[in-house]
Amino acid sequence: MSYKQKKFLSNTPLAEALQIYHEALKAAGIGGPLPGERIPVSDALGRVTSEAGIAKISSPFYHSAAMDGFAVKFIDTFGAAETRPKRLAVPVQAIAVDTGDPMPDGFDAVIMIEDVEKVSEGEVEILKPATPWQHVRLVGEDIVATELIIPENHVIRPVDMAAMLASGHTMIMVRKRPRIAVIPTGTELVEPGSALIKGDIIDFNSTMLSAMATECGATPVRRSIVKDEAVLLRQIIQHALLESDLVVINAGSSAGREDFTAQVIADLGKVYVHGVNIKPGKPVILGIAQSKPVIGIPGYPVSAALTFNLFIKPILYALQGRTMPEAETVIAKLSRQVASSLGQEEFIRVKLGSVSGNLIATPVTRGAGALMSLVRADGIISVPAASEGIAAGHAVTVELLRPRYEIANTVVCIGSHDNALDVLGNFLKKKHPELSLSSAHVGSLGGLLALKRGEAHLAGTHLLDEETGEYNVGYIKKYLPEQKTVLVNLVYRTQGFIVRSGNPKNVRGFEDLVREDVVFVNRQAGAGTRLLTDLYLKRLRIDPNRVKGYHHEEFTHMAVAAAVVSGAADTGLAVLSAAQALGLDFVPVAQERYDLAIPEQHYATPMLQALLQIVREDREFRKQIESMGGYDVSGMGKVISPG
Amino acid sequence: MSYKQKKFLSNTPLAEALQIYHEALKAAGIGGPLPGERIPVSDALGRVTSEAGIAKISSPFYHSAAMDGFAVKFIDTFGAAETRPKRLAVPVQAIAVDTGDPMPDGFDAVIMIEDVEKVSEGEVEILKPATPWQHVRLVGEDIVATELIIPENHVIRPVDMAAMLASGHTMIMVRKRPRIAVIPTGTELVEPGSALIKGDIIDFNSTMLSAMATECGATPVRRSIVKDEAVLLRQIIQHALLESDLVVINAGSSAGREDFTAQVIADLGKVYVHGVNIKPGKPVILGIAQSKPVIGIPGYPVSAALTFNLFIKPILYALQGRTMPEAETVIAKLSRQVASSLGQEEFIRVKLGSVSGNLIATPVTRGAGALMSLVRADGIISVPAASEGIAAGHAVTVELLRPRYEIANTVVCIGSHDNALDVLGNFLKKKHPELSLSSAHVGSLGGLLALKRGEAHLAGTHLLDEETGEYNVGYIKKYLPEQKTVLVNLVYRTQGFIVRSGNPKNVRGFEDLVREDVVFVNRQAGAGTRLLTDLYLKRLRIDPNRVKGYHHEEFTHMAVAAAVVSGAADTGLAVLSAAQALGLDFVPVAQERYDLAIPEQHYATPMLQALLQIVREDREFRKQIESMGGYDVSGMGKVISPG
Repeated sequence: MSYKQKKFLSNTPLAEALQIYHEALKAAGIGGPLPGERIPVSDALGRVTSEAGIAKISSPFYHSAAMDGFAVKFIDTFGAAETRPKRLAVPVQAIAVDTGDPMPDGFDAVIMIEDVEKVSEGEVEILKPATPWQHVRLVGEDIVATELIIPENHVIRPVDMAAMLASGHTMIMVRKRPRIAVIPTGTELVEPGSALIKGDIIDFNSTMLSAMATECGATPVRRSIVKDEAVLLRQIIQHALLESDLVVINAGSSAGREDFTAQVIADLGKVYVHGVNIKPGKPVILGIAQSKPVIGIPGYPVSAALTFNLFIKPILYALQGRTMPEAETVIAKLSRQVASSLGQEEFIRVKLGSVSGNLIATPVTRGAGALMSLVRADGIISVPAASEGIAAGHAVTVELLRPRYEIANTVVCIGSHDNALDVLGNFLKKKHPELSLSSAHVGSLGGLLALKRGEAHLAGTHLLDEETGEYNVGYIKKYLPEQKTVLVNLVYRTQGFIVRSGNPKNVRGFEDLVREDVVFVNRQAGAGTRLLTDLYLKRLRIDPNRVKGYHHEEFTHMAVAAAVVSGAADTGLAVLSAAQALGLDFVPVAQERYDLAIPEQHYATPMLQALLQIVREDREFRKQIESMGGYDVSGMGKVISPG
Repeated sequence: MSYKQKKFLSNTPLAEALQIYHEALKAAGIGGPLPGERIPVSDALGRVTSEAGIAKISSPFYHSAAMDGFAVKFIDTFGAAETRPKRLAVPVQAIAVDTGDPMPDGFDAVIMIEDVEKVSEGEVEILKPATPWQHVRLVGEDIVATELIIPENHVIRPVDMAAMLASGHTMIMVRKRPRIAVIPTGTELVEPGSALIKGDIIDFNSTMLSAMATECGATPVRRSIVKDEAVLLRQIIQHALLESDLVVINAGSSAGREDFTAQVIADLGKVYVHGVNIKPGKPVILGIAQSKPVIGIPGYPVSAALTFNLFIKPILYALQGRTMPEAETVIAKLSRQVASSLGQEEFIRVKLGSVSGNLIATPVTRGAGALMSLVRADGIISVPAASEGIAAGHAVTVELLRPRYEIANTVVCIGSHDNALDVLGNFLKKKHPELSLSSAHVGSLGGLLALKRGEAHLAGTHLLDEETGEYNVGYIKKYLPEQKTVLVNLVYRTQGFIVRSGNPKNVRGFEDLVREDVVFVNRQAGAGTRLLTDLYLKRLRIDPNRVKGYHHEEFTHMAVAAAVVSGAADTGLAVLSAAQALGLDFVPVAQERYDLAIPEQHYATPMLQALLQIVREDREFRKQIESMGGYDVSGMGKVISPG
């Protein structure tokens, strides 16, 4: 049965897919280490030895003085004693040497300079005898010719380079770097920097995949974009096969109308697996052509990165005779439950926060198209095929995407979103490169609940108490009664209706939201902005169900602005900066106080103090916030309530 | 007081030296991050951002279909139901779209292909209404223009490159790489590959230091070797200052006759510290000239590497706006006591072994000139200035020099040394790149005692029982009575006298060792070869005190051979391969059995089985051992005693 007849993707379990492909590669004689090449030792950092490095010469290769002093023949020193000093003739019996000097022929010991008394130009006196070879660095003391310096399949470090040079080598045999062709395919793809028209997709995957290959020690060759045409694709793959050890096609790996990758690979060789039961990343193609691995990976960036790691990285390591370094992992507590389909292995990005000694993992957006979710993720957890999900509070193993120490030095902010937090995060990293701010946007109330559960160091909050008219204080008393929480003002900010340029629907106030021609976009329950919306609707006795789009919820000001700019909605409540950022108009509604709520136990930590110092003292920061518009920074950094 | 007047090194404590220099650099305005440069995003892997990356465009920047199906206007779909299908005119009300296609203008939802029934070319039928924007990927769903992609001082990863491209950038601002000049000085230094004469020292340090700088993200410029002449050195440093951000001079940093480095730095600028109370690495010079750090580091390779890490690495990171990654550390149990001078901070290289779940740290040779000790070390422990040493059995914090997983995958062999073990270690890494063999040479008896203490997976042993004439079995019974230990033969080997070519002293047997003109080199107590020596001397009734050099002990066969080749001794007992390796002659004395003793709990582990498979089945291995001469491989891999 030829592959062409097969129309749909298979649903091969991950382990089985890896096994099938591993055996196919083995049968085809692929995957063993590439042959070696001879390169200068000085260029060998990070390369992998293709044969053992054996010492050609000893080091040192001559006896040398190990101390400043006089070289002597130990036999001449017999009998010297404090009570019976012995005199030696210079230079017949004693010769001045510095550390490192070769031992004069026939001399076999060194007496330290401090143990020698000069009697005259021609004579020195010693008070005790020398032992044979004392203070002499013997031939081969460090390296003996013929000894093993570094074994085969060893990743070369600076000290290995030194030892190879010291043992007489200037060249070294290392594995060739695997050459990997990365072929971006898709009629809709355009090169980065192109003038964009609707329907274009910037090809950023091939640069990402090339960089990932570089990280694995391979030499990537990024080819030009190939249109979705089988004949063209075939030509390019054939050409790439000639000059590469591995070919990656991205994408066209699914089974849609314009997905030719599988068909072309099948024509050129054989497809062993098409479709793996993982999420994201299902439409993977594992093939072999002309005795080389040819792999099609999906187009969504998160899928592309994940499948590269699962299927391509191990081959690149094997081609170099290297084992893949084990991924660094940590055990963390899952903050929210994760649902997953039975039978499918699922990989979920998480944010990590180290709060009061507990490591908390919070799942982030799952969309395979969400590149930023990968940029912002700290790690990945895998939900096995046999599982339907993981409950909140469970311990999970997280594969780290950032170094462990970075995660320990991250201020975790969960709560309401404000653009000022992005700016604060950047200033923190600018002033303290060792620190990061990670902010998750779950609304003001969600932030306070995260503090209650011990999942965050601080929460951004703007919760208006309907009865007292006061922001935040009452909510903190109510939701965090047992926790002393310091409330620090970040900004006062203007909330208003975001509308398209020129306000075409003429939105002036909440009354306009019930109009037949106005579509609203709301914020999620628990968001301070949502409370503000609900408060105004209540005051004006407007039934929320009469507001079109009331149930369309977004999680950030920017997402609300994006919904308006996109036409998905006509208006939504957000801060001025969000409108300005996307060139939208803004109809002010209210000024509100946006505070940082910080549990007392975190408040005094160096990390939080570094953050607060920026809030309180950094003029540049203050200026940048003001320049964004819609902010009043007069109270910035003031303690509203000491907790 | 000018520096020139100061003749001797100071003994500044490490923390104080770092503090003094840090403040001097700060006062001179050095150490902050270098300015940025604009480079293509595609070249930015591993570089550090010098300003925040802010999205220029949204991604996607147009609405697109998130499913294959039909784009519709949701308002046209009102009222559709299973019982009341609704028909839509193509292409007025419904337009076929594939995933990723831009949404046609005025269309605001997608109905999945499986939910659409084709009625005719001009009409499709649906059974339920669409909701607004269902299955549509909205503008900015991934990235919203103006949002922060990556902050300043961020080390760029592949996914960051993708996100920068996706958000409209093709160029990115990154910190310039610090340029570091590495100047090797020393009249005795020669370039690697030179024809060597006595007194030459191959300059390998500058290559090692350059590679270390590369690992820190800097661009090293290795200068030619400079003779020990103050005027020359001054010119070179002046020139290097013009084109570098940091200058390193190696060495001439001590206070000897030909040590000009400190003087020249003082002439060009100022020396802040000369001499730090650490071991190794004391003669360090921390200076500043023309507003640039100028650092002199000692010539011994271990000292050079250590002082680079202590004093130079932090500056290179700061120049890039990066924090130094925390060194990876493990807690291990010290197997032998370590003595150290009070007042001096000492850094000690250790080998690490993970045996039965215990991590054991064993100190290795301390000589600062012992490059191989650094090549073979797994980690470094620091003995604080306030301590006189650390007792055996204590828990110590070890800074790792090799990845953690490599240490976990290392077979630890402690005991007698045989060259066949080097070959075995190389074959193990060749066949199983994930595994390593670490062998420490403490003699046969030391090996059995290491097994007893649970510090090794196996021991190489050749202990002849004087009474039974049997090798090893009796010793294992005696020293490991409670431990089932499998004894596997590795080789039978010939022991004999190693003599210089042509046997000039005409050594024929043990009787010759008492001759006035013959100097012997012995093995350490507990070595099987030592037992053999002592047994023969006893049989021949020779008083060991009559053997010149009897008390000169070496730890390996190779060291014995090296002592002979060097003239330090005329002969010593060792195996043939050691003689052959160094082109020496050999006078056979006895054949002995060299076995591997393996405690039962390790015997069946995959790591040991991989090792034993090579011993038992690998023909290439067997061939290579045979080719070394002096070995009988007929029993290779046979179980001598099952324990």
